Amino acid sequence: MPKVSDEHKEQRIQQILLAASEVFKSKGYEQATLKDIVEEAGMSRGWIYLYFKDKTTIFLALIDYLDAQLEERISTLLKENKGSAHGVLISYFQETSQSIDRLEDSVVPAIYEFCTTGWREQQVRDYFVNRYIRVTAIFIDVIGKGVENGEFKPTRSVDEIVKYMISSLDGIMLHSLAFGSQQINAVQQVNLLINQLMEMLSVNFLKIMEKNS
Amino acid sequence: MPKVSDEHKEQRIQQILLAASEVFKSKGYEQATLKDIVEEAGMSRGWIYLYFKDKTTIFLALIDYLDAQLEERISTLLKENKGSAHGVLISYFQETSQSIDRLEDSVVPAIYEFCTTGWREQQVRDYFVNRYIRVTAIFIDVIGKGVENGEFKPTRSVDEIVKYMISSLDGIMLHSLAFGSQQINAVQQVNLLINQLMEMLSVNFLKIMEKNS
Repeated sequence: MPKVSDEHKEQRIQQILLAASEVFKSKGYEQATLKDIVEEAGMSRGWIYLYFKDKTTIFLALIDYLDAQLEERISTLLKENKGSAHGVLISYFQETSQSIDRLEDSVVPAIYEFCTTGWREQQVRDYFVNRYIRVTAIFIDVIGKGVENGEFKPTRSVDEIVKYMISSLDGIMLHSLAFGSQQINAVQQVNLLINQLMEMLSVNFLKIMEKNS
Repeated sequence: MPKVSDEHKEQRIQQILLAASEVFKSKGYEQATLKDIVEEAGMSRGWIYLYFKDKTTIFLALIDYLDAQLEERISTLLKENKGSAHGVLISYFQETSQSIDRLEDSVVPAIYEFCTTGWREQQVRDYFVNRYIRVTAIFIDVIGKGVENGEFKPTRSVDEIVKYMISSLDGIMLHSLAFGSQQINAVQQVNLLINQLMEMLSVNFLKIMEKNS
């Protein structure tokens, strides 16, 4: 086995995940092979086996990586919005809305495919349940900050609001992919969801204007 | 080729669809084979080929059949609720809510699987776009009746409300299957969706009480 420093290791893994991401984007999950990833990465198969035992392991590492990026993005948005949770949510939904007609060129279709073909397997289920808890926690945290600093006065439990929010958003994304974002008026739907979210959170706009001034 | 009367033909087709439904429930779409369906139906392969050329054709006929059942169910609910669109929606959502923890034992997972693995194929896409238009039309019609008879005064276009409603409902169903209906509090989420729907429709409860009295 080749010896590598931690930094090199990180670089290699990133390189593999980047290559895998390209392959899963263009082929989906099932049709993609480890060989495709090896070729796209331009590494020998041995290097890849050093870190990942098969296609599934690479795929799950890729999802984890994307989720970590989401978490980082939310942190950045919090800073950019001077700690305003309202600002974070609006920015996040705007970004989602802007990218919704390009979902097909992302890893999202492969994730839906993997999830809907794999949910009979306990391991896949367990993985996705953990992921669900992790992703809801990110948004529960953001909204919690908004409650603490007086921006929001939720009319329902934050847990309930977040769960509903991500189901609806996933439904809109699923429908965009299945029927086309134009057909379903995806952007309009995301706007409607934002409105409903803000209503459930009883946004205190005076407080937000104060923060921004 | 065996000769059959129209009535017999309908019976045979129903028998095949019923068998197919059992197979797709237990195996999902990809894992199911025509052989499984032949065995489950207890017919010779020749009989099945008389009506369907392959597994996909049977699957699409099954979805059409289920959609026709939905349409019939909505008509029945309209009668049961004495023409009240509000009653229809509440009953429909109640039924959905009650069956959401048994989604795994239905054809729904196979439909998601088929859709998320097939959306790269133009034919599959075209089929699902048509289906989307058909299903939205059913609900646009119900809500339209409610607008006509004064039960609803929608705050947005009925088209927009229906599209949002079915995206959200699909999102809740997808999450129920992927993460478990308990984990996501599916019943609570459906209730939240009903509330939001009723708000967007500005339900005139006085009118509804009049109708029911």
